[in-house]
Amino acid sequence: MKYKAIDQDDILVLQEIVGADFLIPKQELEEDYAHDELQTVHAWPDCLVQVKNKDQISQIMKYAYRMNIPVTVRGSGTGLVGGCVPIEGGILLDTSKMNRFVELDPINMTLRVEPGVLLMEIYEYVEKEGFFYAPDPGEKSATIGGNIATNAGGMRAMKYGVTRDWVRGLEVVLPNGELVSFGGKVVKNSSGYALKDLLIGSEGTLGIIVEATLKLIPLPKYSASMLIPFPNRIQAVSAVPKIITHHVLPTAVEFLEKESLRFSEEYLGKKIPHAQYDAYLLITYDGNTQSEIDYDIQRISELCVNTLGAIDVYLIDTDERKQSVWSARGAFLEAIKASTTQIDECDVVLPRSMISEYLDFTQQLSQSLQVRIPYFGHVGDGNLHIYFCKDDLEDQKWNELLTKGFEQMYQKAFELGGKVSGEHGIGYAKKSYLKEQVGPTQIQLMKGIKDTFDPTYILNPGKVIQ
Amino acid sequence: MKYKAIDQDDILVLQEIVGADFLIPKQELEEDYAHDELQTVHAWPDCLVQVKNKDQISQIMKYAYRMNIPVTVRGSGTGLVGGCVPIEGGILLDTSKMNRFVELDPINMTLRVEPGVLLMEIYEYVEKEGFFYAPDPGEKSATIGGNIATNAGGMRAMKYGVTRDWVRGLEVVLPNGELVSFGGKVVKNSSGYALKDLLIGSEGTLGIIVEATLKLIPLPKYSASMLIPFPNRIQAVSAVPKIITHHVLPTAVEFLEKESLRFSEEYLGKKIPHAQYDAYLLITYDGNTQSEIDYDIQRISELCVNTLGAIDVYLIDTDERKQSVWSARGAFLEAIKASTTQIDECDVVLPRSMISEYLDFTQQLSQSLQVRIPYFGHVGDGNLHIYFCKDDLEDQKWNELLTKGFEQMYQKAFELGGKVSGEHGIGYAKKSYLKEQVGPTQIQLMKGIKDTFDPTYILNPGKVIQ
Repeated sequence: MKYKAIDQDDILVLQEIVGADFLIPKQELEEDYAHDELQTVHAWPDCLVQVKNKDQISQIMKYAYRMNIPVTVRGSGTGLVGGCVPIEGGILLDTSKMNRFVELDPINMTLRVEPGVLLMEIYEYVEKEGFFYAPDPGEKSATIGGNIATNAGGMRAMKYGVTRDWVRGLEVVLPNGELVSFGGKVVKNSSGYALKDLLIGSEGTLGIIVEATLKLIPLPKYSASMLIPFPNRIQAVSAVPKIITHHVLPTAVEFLEKESLRFSEEYLGKKIPHAQYDAYLLITYDGNTQSEIDYDIQRISELCVNTLGAIDVYLIDTDERKQSVWSARGAFLEAIKASTTQIDECDVVLPRSMISEYLDFTQQLSQSLQVRIPYFGHVGDGNLHIYFCKDDLEDQKWNELLTKGFEQMYQKAFELGGKVSGEHGIGYAKKSYLKEQVGPTQIQLMKGIKDTFDPTYILNPGKVIQ
Repeated sequence: MKYKAIDQDDILVLQEIVGADFLIPKQELEEDYAHDELQTVHAWPDCLVQVKNKDQISQIMKYAYRMNIPVTVRGSGTGLVGGCVPIEGGILLDTSKMNRFVELDPINMTLRVEPGVLLMEIYEYVEKEGFFYAPDPGEKSATIGGNIATNAGGMRAMKYGVTRDWVRGLEVVLPNGELVSFGGKVVKNSSGYALKDLLIGSEGTLGIIVEATLKLIPLPKYSASMLIPFPNRIQAVSAVPKIITHHVLPTAVEFLEKESLRFSEEYLGKKIPHAQYDAYLLITYDGNTQSEIDYDIQRISELCVNTLGAIDVYLIDTDERKQSVWSARGAFLEAIKASTTQIDECDVVLPRSMISEYLDFTQQLSQSLQVRIPYFGHVGDGNLHIYFCKDDLEDQKWNELLTKGFEQMYQKAFELGGKVSGEHGIGYAKKSYLKEQVGPTQIQLMKGIKDTFDPTYILNPGKVIQ
């Protein structure tokens, strides 16, 4: 695609729309805006435009559409696949200042928000009113717009589903600047093709999310977590399906290993209780009576210790313990980053029955390539986060091993019925693996959809299927 | 669109694919195949083809694609908007003999089925293994293929979501005969555009579902229902949001009126207990401990009687009572049909806060038009089923009143934030209302999607957006 390069006339028009203070030209921009959290993809926009409302976005898109200027949307920039990196330059449209709570509707149990509201702000806002927004991606400073764009998953997906399941309606600005509304406050909808569901997970390539109507439920009144050490990874991972099908659905089942905990201890600079074992499951139950939770905890404790080979069961019941264990879990990505010079990530999702075999494969690959590959994961839902660490490898060697290693990782995942991405998306970094996974027919269907929504390819160019 | 009319050569080719016994030409076909359950749309296919596997479907589509012959898919024919009626003639592709259970995977908690498996067969199959498939559309003899094609909802949607939320993967034959696979056994997926979710609810216009991988969860061990009479409709309906937000999410909240119960009593030929009151809520809770359910029942009973004006609370606890009440609820549609000469249906879904206002409007409309308009509904999720009854009206008058009445019903629904269809789809009968609701831009986007999947418009022509 060939786009118009931004010149001074364009800058003046954009300044007119957003105000001079909210347009920052490339030469004055911080380097942060040229990459996302993982920093594997780098590119500078011609300018950053900080928008305050949907009307500004509509005006900008009308102009960009007419002038053929590429536009890439950015929220908090916490993505891991380069999805918000403006690889064709043009306008980087920053929605982080669109962070109003528009309406909490207690009767329809919906929350209307602008796209720049942060995930952690949503929890705080609704929980004090007795409501619950269940999706629980690890990065709480992500914007809800970014969560919707990637169909973010998180730790509670096995019980509560992913972001898509919690979005009832979307307002979207199309590439030509037109504002459209999909869905609404309704619980059911079978009125034509599922445009809302198609927009969710389309990573800013089909339209710009300018408002979302989220589903809420009454806040579960009680929850409890257990940290369960096992002698080794195989026993821990093999226990998961048995735990899940034995009784009721846990809220979350996370898998931790000694190595990840050690990174977290170093990174956080403090000890984590019971961190001496090789492998752990961290299991949470929630419910509306204490007796129900007690019953869940008791049944699963007995099962783990009596039948599944667990060493012990530690109840994470005091505030101090909760803080300690969950902050360790929350710090994994940062801790792994801090442990090395550079990382790249593989966010595969597999049928949960295949996790153990896949982690075996990963360990063998680590040995054969001589690359350190720590991982952690949502084993309950089959989604693993696996990190290749550069350590002291030279650039050329690192790139070679990374290419070779990733090809093998994804190939193995596809063989086992897995997908490229469970929750981080395709963005720029994983495009070739998506093509390999779904094949030319599905890529053609996706391109047809892109052509329909964005015929001149000005929205987030070069991403997902391009 | 101009299609090739089927001739004897085509018949021979199709017979070759499926066997002579499984092709029934128009002249030998029962009249049932010229309409669906509601019978508001009539059209004959040139032939009915009963397929037994995906390979036959692929061969048929390759031929139909080459020859430009329209193909309409039919399951049990229980639809209510003419979605499976072959309005351009051609091939009526009957998938009801593709009714194999392919695999129950207890570890990944998934069920793979062919599209012709009936909803009631799925419940029976999975519940005896301790699993639960939650979507609960009223028509249990519908096929799962039809449920997926319309994104069917049902009574448990407020707690468990709709069919889309329970489909992890789809195998689909595209109009050109190619077999593709979307999703799989994975719990999360953020790998390119959501083609699976787009296929769901596309009413057989984008591809033919040849296999589905459904999500299961452990079967809740206990459930209990209450029949709660109120002095009038307004009090009953107004109680719903308070019940829902007061405590935990009920599994289902159904609204019944004396009139519907009376139809059911007549239709079933037996008395329903406690049927003397004007308005009722039928509320269900489920869970995994008896104490939890007891607690739910007690809290909601107290709330209803002490605060919300309920007359009493009848626990539907014995098998006899369950059978009696649920068979009455299940018979509503049949009973309303039996009470008149002809009906047409409005399946609107509204924000649940708008139900009371909308039912007021419906009653006023019934009086002003002098048409009997009984209704019932899933008030918990805002989805109403409203029936215009012809009774002894003359055809011309009936058509006039129906057109006028439906226009007003949908117009009012849109004003209140409602949608054309909660769960029955658009099919042929509701196309004009969809256009009115979503406007030309969204219709154009949907047409672009149709062009991408089915460029020659041979699949279920004349439906949804055409």
